[in-house]
Amino acid sequence: MVDAGLAEVCRETLAEGGLLIPENTVKEWLRDRGVSVPPGRVADTLEMAIEFARKVSYPVVMKLVSDRMLHKTEVRGVVVGIEDESALRRAYHRLEDAADMIPGAPEIYVELQVPPGPEVIVGLQNDEHFGPVLMVGTGGTYTDLLKDVAFRTLPVTETEVLQMLEGLQGWQLLKGFRGAPASNVDSLVKLVTGIAKLGVEIAPFLDSADFNPVIALPGGAWIVDAKITLAREELPDPFAFERPRTDHLGGFFDPASVAVVGASASPGKIGNVVVDSLVNHEFKGKVFPVNPGREEIMGVKCYPSLEALPERPDLVVMVVDLAEGPELLERMASLEIHNLLVISGGGKELGGDREKVEEEMAALARERDVRIVGPNCIGAFDGETRFDSFFYSHERVARPPAGKMACITQSGTWGCAFLEWARTTGVSKMVSYGNRVDVDEGDLIAYLSGDPSTSVIGSYVEGLSGGRKFLAAAKGAAKNGKPVVVFKTGRNERSAEAAVSHTGAYGGSYEVYAGALEQAGIITTDSFHELFGACKALAMQPAAAGPRAAMLSNGAGPMVNALDLFPVRGLELVTLEGESVTKMRDHFSFFYLVENPVDVTGSASAEDYEFVIRTLLADEKVDIIMPFFVFQDTPLDESIVERMELLAGSDKPILGCAIGGDYSRRMSARLEAVGIPVMDDVTQWVAAAAALARWGKVKPKK
Amino acid sequence: MVDAGLAEVCRETLAEGGLLIPENTVKEWLRDRGVSVPPGRVADTLEMAIEFARKVSYPVVMKLVSDRMLHKTEVRGVVVGIEDESALRRAYHRLEDAADMIPGAPEIYVELQVPPGPEVIVGLQNDEHFGPVLMVGTGGTYTDLLKDVAFRTLPVTETEVLQMLEGLQGWQLLKGFRGAPASNVDSLVKLVTGIAKLGVEIAPFLDSADFNPVIALPGGAWIVDAKITLAREELPDPFAFERPRTDHLGGFFDPASVAVVGASASPGKIGNVVVDSLVNHEFKGKVFPVNPGREEIMGVKCYPSLEALPERPDLVVMVVDLAEGPELLERMASLEIHNLLVISGGGKELGGDREKVEEEMAALARERDVRIVGPNCIGAFDGETRFDSFFYSHERVARPPAGKMACITQSGTWGCAFLEWARTTGVSKMVSYGNRVDVDEGDLIAYLSGDPSTSVIGSYVEGLSGGRKFLAAAKGAAKNGKPVVVFKTGRNERSAEAAVSHTGAYGGSYEVYAGALEQAGIITTDSFHELFGACKALAMQPAAAGPRAAMLSNGAGPMVNALDLFPVRGLELVTLEGESVTKMRDHFSFFYLVENPVDVTGSASAEDYEFVIRTLLADEKVDIIMPFFVFQDTPLDESIVERMELLAGSDKPILGCAIGGDYSRRMSARLEAVGIPVMDDVTQWVAAAAALARWGKVKPKK
Repeated sequence: MVDAGLAEVCRETLAEGGLLIPENTVKEWLRDRGVSVPPGRVADTLEMAIEFARKVSYPVVMKLVSDRMLHKTEVRGVVVGIEDESALRRAYHRLEDAADMIPGAPEIYVELQVPPGPEVIVGLQNDEHFGPVLMVGTGGTYTDLLKDVAFRTLPVTETEVLQMLEGLQGWQLLKGFRGAPASNVDSLVKLVTGIAKLGVEIAPFLDSADFNPVIALPGGAWIVDAKITLAREELPDPFAFERPRTDHLGGFFDPASVAVVGASASPGKIGNVVVDSLVNHEFKGKVFPVNPGREEIMGVKCYPSLEALPERPDLVVMVVDLAEGPELLERMASLEIHNLLVISGGGKELGGDREKVEEEMAALARERDVRIVGPNCIGAFDGETRFDSFFYSHERVARPPAGKMACITQSGTWGCAFLEWARTTGVSKMVSYGNRVDVDEGDLIAYLSGDPSTSVIGSYVEGLSGGRKFLAAAKGAAKNGKPVVVFKTGRNERSAEAAVSHTGAYGGSYEVYAGALEQAGIITTDSFHELFGACKALAMQPAAAGPRAAMLSNGAGPMVNALDLFPVRGLELVTLEGESVTKMRDHFSFFYLVENPVDVTGSASAEDYEFVIRTLLADEKVDIIMPFFVFQDTPLDESIVERMELLAGSDKPILGCAIGGDYSRRMSARLEAVGIPVMDDVTQWVAAAAALARWGKVKPKK
Repeated sequence: MVDAGLAEVCRETLAEGGLLIPENTVKEWLRDRGVSVPPGRVADTLEMAIEFARKVSYPVVMKLVSDRMLHKTEVRGVVVGIEDESALRRAYHRLEDAADMIPGAPEIYVELQVPPGPEVIVGLQNDEHFGPVLMVGTGGTYTDLLKDVAFRTLPVTETEVLQMLEGLQGWQLLKGFRGAPASNVDSLVKLVTGIAKLGVEIAPFLDSADFNPVIALPGGAWIVDAKITLAREELPDPFAFERPRTDHLGGFFDPASVAVVGASASPGKIGNVVVDSLVNHEFKGKVFPVNPGREEIMGVKCYPSLEALPERPDLVVMVVDLAEGPELLERMASLEIHNLLVISGGGKELGGDREKVEEEMAALARERDVRIVGPNCIGAFDGETRFDSFFYSHERVARPPAGKMACITQSGTWGCAFLEWARTTGVSKMVSYGNRVDVDEGDLIAYLSGDPSTSVIGSYVEGLSGGRKFLAAAKGAAKNGKPVVVFKTGRNERSAEAAVSHTGAYGGSYEVYAGALEQAGIITTDSFHELFGACKALAMQPAAAGPRAAMLSNGAGPMVNALDLFPVRGLELVTLEGESVTKMRDHFSFFYLVENPVDVTGSASAEDYEFVIRTLLADEKVDIIMPFFVFQDTPLDESIVERMELLAGSDKPILGCAIGGDYSRRMSARLEAVGIPVMDDVTQWVAAAAALARWGKVKPKK
């Protein structure tokens, strides 16, 4: 029995300069936890080996085990397929000879040989963003070629392990591919969950662990090889993470008064546009331009310093050189101002001294109780208070109305796209946080999770400052009934590098992100357009009870395109039958095609659309209704708006799509005004439908 | 020697009721063609087998060969790993016994055993769309799971075979994966090309042929197993295809006079909108509404029949029930009218009698020298003559100006999107051909290839009527300096089915399409948005000399996104160095990031853009320049338009992208007016850049 002593063994091994837990020890630990490893033992003598082999029966395998050696096959330290005693004797002597040439006094381990079968690899590692994670993948010859792996953060449940396996391409091999018998999945799930538990226990010492191969036979799964490599020093608590902090965050959205440090009188300058955004438009709070060289800007009195202001502002917007940040922070703290929004860039993306300025600001923020958004960002927007600090003139960027969607983003450019696309549907709050020296995505999600005007949160991520913090915040939001939709870029090495130079954020492996986000119930997307579409769908329509979708259109091309994407996104095309078909067949001219997708042809009227959608609403087999509108077709009259308004409040989601020019866009906006979201791209349409189905699975049950 | 007699052997085998060419015969054929098959022979006696094994040396393999048996392993008809004479004797007797139980008097074949190595599968088949095709794929355990295959139409060159192999995921295995020795690729290419040549010879008899596995060793590639299954009857000439026919096609774009059969006086009816499109807008030709029940429509005299018209029209547009089609055709022929455009649907997509109507029309068209576009379509548009037959009112769909892009499409909906998106760039000709009873995509491409106003052809395809015809037309266009860009849907079973009900077109396997289109030098895309973007880029910018791209932006988020897509699309991110870096470093403030992608930050002016682009134009390492414009950023002044105009005529392509609302769209349109294409989506941007690189590889060298 090892149990509580695991940490002790790791600690001792480290103390003795070892970095490896020998295979036999790992297997013993696992055996003690009820994980199926083949019967095996260390054989100090040939006789012990023979006796053991006789007991478990041939064939057996023998290998050298040690806390030093890393590449068993390189030193010919493994003999497989030992069929009888004479072969065993030969193998034993060979291994004895090999052992003499290896430092660390390896021992000979003999175990029952597991017959061939579908191979799985299991791994444990400490990820730099998410801490201890579990990896499961398809094993065998093509492992490295396939890169067919799934990750989850530790700890995991058996259900999560099953989901990991089901998500692999190689899942088909486990389910019995081409007539082969199926593997015992239940046993495999238990085995992987057991490895994960061990991972939790030894996490503070873990560099990486490989269980490769695990063989998943019809009768049960077995760990054939196991290796644990230790970190060079003990990590204090790899599961620890900072909880999201929401204190003072309200000040970024509803400030009664704002000071702009670096306000400028020159049109086109960033410090000028920011003042314009605050002074000349819908924001009702007080605005104090700060610039020692000016008396007034845009007719508003200008002040030489924060100290000279007639009252304490709730928020400071900083547009001056970042190097002035630490001093500004000190002065804000003295004045008890708790919110600083730093638009200025030129921080850690440049490295060196500039990076140090950010570090100093980060430390001061905590010390002096000031929250910072930025630097290197476009700032914040509130749909209700109409606060915004953008250096986008109103002529160039019309601000959207108040709405239910929130957007948090590392990239201001994407944030701007979100605002502009939301002209009809509105935005509750938007924050571009750039280099995120203090307020990060975890803080913002936690804050928005409690914000009554927000019902869905979209998040553009290049890299996270705290992985587990982000996941905890997202889980909290979902629990609160608010879906979190993420679009993550920086997925390959070059793009991750570019993200670093841009906001100083390291991307990390997308596979780890994908698994961790999935596990936290987050809805992931593959473009910003998809992210926006998913947010819009979730803000305007109920979750889908399942993935079974029905489409209808007066032009079929886009539906064929959508169907190509259905399997990739986990949507199912319902086969319509029974009453639905009879009703439509009776109602329509013979040339309407009343199967799914329903092709109402170019002759379709708005009444035809209403009839089909009512039929699909009544059909229990349909979870999501997806009308495509060729608004350009003249027979489709504009009564479609009132008709769709009647249907918009249904508890089954309706998700439209329309593609074209000005008229289509106007009609789409009119439908959105009555509650029907309309996508403008087929990929976005399918992704948004998938988001509704996913949210149906994730959201808390009533 | 078999040579010219191959066809004879196939014919005889069929005559005798055989459907299989025995392995030994296939291997003999291949050996005669210099393809490497292992030494082997039929051994009528045990002694012959022993003698042969001694000659080629052990290990050998023995198997039963016959023109009847299909599953050798099922009847235990193969013995591998025969290491010595005693094992050979045992195996020979076992096979003799097995042979007695099998009809068709199988013989025993003995051959040298090929050692294990990377496995490849090679196949031949007669595809229903493209005729004889060659398939190459990754072999081994996961073949079916990986579905890692490439297709080409026969015949193929060695270069094409090499491209097939390079396109496989499994290519890495052949190049020596994880330190394994590389396979002899040259030998493998020769082997596959040899199989392809055999395929050409026996194509008229071919059902399918499998060469699985082929083992690609460092010393050379070997065909281990070979099987040819014959078609039940000889195909007259599987390589034959109808040549594209362009006769009379001009009549669909530049008719001096048009009759509308089914003209309607009721607003909103299709027959009404078509007359409106022709009569009340820019089309200058004569229009004759035909409707026996009306005196006039929209102030234009109406006629009871074609025969009653004051002159012979060049073109008839048909909006009445399709069942009237054959009679109308007869009457047109009598009047020597050669062009019929059928908007009416309700043809083969409904099956039964309706399908027969189409067949009758198809036959009549040929017989009576009438060309038909449609049925079930929206018709045609000409940017110059302003002819259009759409049932989209001008209020709903503004027609684009004349331009260089042509679009041919099975789906009217996608065609309409193309027109609307082309508001700034213009369209030469657009044709929606729906069920394509006569004029098909091959005819249209051939016609457009000779059309002086068209410089690039976009084609939306659900299924093709004639695969080789299409490929021949596309190759002809490329030779003529006109790229063909294709977006193919109906890629999975369900979507292909939907395409059938929609236009009666069967999709077929996308893998075969992908390979055939690649081989013909066609540019393929994965969405209609990409198709449009690629056409626009190709119409406005020169081809790229290579795949090395450089990006710049005043907002970095979209560039990180683009970089995620670069490897998938075959683009390379150039590392800038030397003079480019020095010049920019000297010129810019320290916080501009002068690596690739170039981040000119939110402070960038139009002059900054011009400076970077001029630097990149002068850098020989850069093949494509990709500026992203955050037009919303106030510092980016509108002199960007004149500055870009100066750069637009460069012989290195410049491809912009901008995302946002009204202002961005206006600015993008202004840039396009001076010759710089601007995409509105990152995926589209990268796809269009890849299209420029691909066209650089495909287009004829001067």
